[in-house]
Amino acid sequence: MTPSALREIMDLASRPGILSFAVGLPAADLFPARELSAAAARVLASDGQALQYAVPYQPLRRQVVELMSMRGVSCREEQVFLTSGAQQGMDLLSRLLLAPGGRVILERAVYEGLQLAVRRLAPEILTVPTDSATGIDVDAVEALLATGAVPAFLYLITDGHNPLGVSISRDKRTRLAELARRHQLPIVEDDAYGFLHFDENPPPPLRALDAEWVCYLGSFSKILAPGLRAGWMVVAEPLIPRLSALKHAVDLDTPSFSHRVISEYLAAEDFPRHLERLRVEYRRRRDATLSALERHLSGRARWNRPSGGMFVWVELSPAIDAVRLLATAVERFSLAFSPGQAFAVAGTDHARHCLRLAFGNLQPAQIAEGIERLAALVQSAAH
Amino acid sequence: MTPSALREIMDLASRPGILSFAVGLPAADLFPARELSAAAARVLASDGQALQYAVPYQPLRRQVVELMSMRGVSCREEQVFLTSGAQQGMDLLSRLLLAPGGRVILERAVYEGLQLAVRRLAPEILTVPTDSATGIDVDAVEALLATGAVPAFLYLITDGHNPLGVSISRDKRTRLAELARRHQLPIVEDDAYGFLHFDENPPPPLRALDAEWVCYLGSFSKILAPGLRAGWMVVAEPLIPRLSALKHAVDLDTPSFSHRVISEYLAAEDFPRHLERLRVEYRRRRDATLSALERHLSGRARWNRPSGGMFVWVELSPAIDAVRLLATAVERFSLAFSPGQAFAVAGTDHARHCLRLAFGNLQPAQIAEGIERLAALVQSAAH
Repeated sequence: MTPSALREIMDLASRPGILSFAVGLPAADLFPARELSAAAARVLASDGQALQYAVPYQPLRRQVVELMSMRGVSCREEQVFLTSGAQQGMDLLSRLLLAPGGRVILERAVYEGLQLAVRRLAPEILTVPTDSATGIDVDAVEALLATGAVPAFLYLITDGHNPLGVSISRDKRTRLAELARRHQLPIVEDDAYGFLHFDENPPPPLRALDAEWVCYLGSFSKILAPGLRAGWMVVAEPLIPRLSALKHAVDLDTPSFSHRVISEYLAAEDFPRHLERLRVEYRRRRDATLSALERHLSGRARWNRPSGGMFVWVELSPAIDAVRLLATAVERFSLAFSPGQAFAVAGTDHARHCLRLAFGNLQPAQIAEGIERLAALVQSAAH
Repeated sequence: MTPSALREIMDLASRPGILSFAVGLPAADLFPARELSAAAARVLASDGQALQYAVPYQPLRRQVVELMSMRGVSCREEQVFLTSGAQQGMDLLSRLLLAPGGRVILERAVYEGLQLAVRRLAPEILTVPTDSATGIDVDAVEALLATGAVPAFLYLITDGHNPLGVSISRDKRTRLAELARRHQLPIVEDDAYGFLHFDENPPPPLRALDAEWVCYLGSFSKILAPGLRAGWMVVAEPLIPRLSALKHAVDLDTPSFSHRVISEYLAAEDFPRHLERLRVEYRRRRDATLSALERHLSGRARWNRPSGGMFVWVELSPAIDAVRLLATAVERFSLAFSPGQAFAVAGTDHARHCLRLAFGNLQPAQIAEGIERLAALVQSAAH
């Protein structure tokens, strides 16, 4: 999907009265605005140098190391790069790892931001199957690598996949880490949703299984707020000098006010408790989505049961074109969602009859109402 | 200068007791921290969507149009792109205008951040002479273009040049705008220091003279605070769709908390008065620099008289190597500055005996003390 098409959807979705599952927005009512405001005030009152140029903010790098340990990942401060969000990480790693015209391995349904980040480098895209129940087809990755293909990297969202909602099994993680080592294949692991898991003891991200080939992207957008424009990368030692030079060329690598505010917030507040609150609330919204689907679309559609994140993937009857369905949805039902085609790697149409429901920023009552409308829409499309 | 070398200087410069003219820091005591804190609190208290993903923040784009009119530039909201600082603008415009291996015209003394931004594209650099009294040699630009060279762009700081401190004459501006039109030469005009002019009625930036070929880079780093990571670009209409797509790929082009805070600050405060206060204070520091140079180095060095910004360029005796001088400065005089070589386009050594004094973040008494040390250092180097 092009940026202008995305903006059109955001415009549509923000029209009064439109009930939108279209955009992957986190829950705005869960942003800790009061605590962030207090943190900002303390930062500005206490440190006259808080707004000055400086080197990347060490205290936040240390705090990210602690956050990573909550994800089962052990890393060092020097491996942590602070970014202005995971998207910047994708852009930087693409520029660093991928030569123009090089190859990347992508699932055939992939986050559109990654497609934007690599597109300017005109890579040859090696596509592997994926599905909303089990995620990336690791056999297909192995088969690709066995042909001797030398891709610049494989990109993957291990947990709470965007758009599919799926989190892959522990076994697939182990196999991917082994493949990465055996074939010296860099894996760009996007963990934007990893802290939002709904079950106890989820398997750790790939970065916990391999510190050499996995480049990890983290983000504060889903666990604090997107407007802070803050994320991080954890990379292997050999990449550090080049990444450091690139980061300086791109934005001087100077700490942003947001980095300071987040650091102060993390130091002052009970962040594990905040995360637990987020997990409970997103789980509640997932459950509302699943039970409404069960109630209204049973037998007429299939969907998965995400164990984390904020997306459910819905497959309608193969006869239905979800892009056309969206036009009707907006016009006649004041409803919006993302058609599967928005995430399909160019040239594939496996997702023509699919759609992504982003439930993160909707209350359960809105979710129930929206899915009732979706059922009526699907009903009308069947005639 | 490499990022690691720059960090070394910043580390040295931040050691207790080092009096540093080395880094182009704005005056931290002039950051309106209290007003920004109040603005942040109001933003977070009043708008539940302030931290959510959204399209670029329209109110700030409108306010930038007003700021531009204070610089004598007329432009439209659609031409304004909000960035995370002028450095991001340089990176984006380099990627947009410059094909790998293409050509750029640079003065032989040029801001190192621009060199970093273009370096990855391995351009052929066409160098033109420049000096600290009158700035870029426009005859040389004209001669270059007359040979049929088709550069991707020319980069220029029109006012308060970094590193030279010079602002170019009205006549040179007119001629450059004419050359740009006649030769269809894009000019990337970096106006980071343009609001900090010391005289009445300064000539307007190039963008006021040509709206088609001049891409303007603005920054809040020197007029509010660098930590806000906020700047803007004003570009010609035909660039908008491509720039918009690239900005989305690089960081989703979503408004940062800083953009909201700045907008609220600008709406609530008397910004022209803040700017006037900055001008008075930076002029005071420039005057302190010039009078100390006059007092201590008259006859042993030459320097210019900047009419804006925060840099003075000093030429020592041609026998002196300023890089070696810096080592002695730090070790024996607890003094730091930037050697001219740090800004010299690769392969040139015209600036070997020169140094840049960044006076922006020093009080007049510190400036006087620092230049007294510099004089003693130069004296010792002559033996």
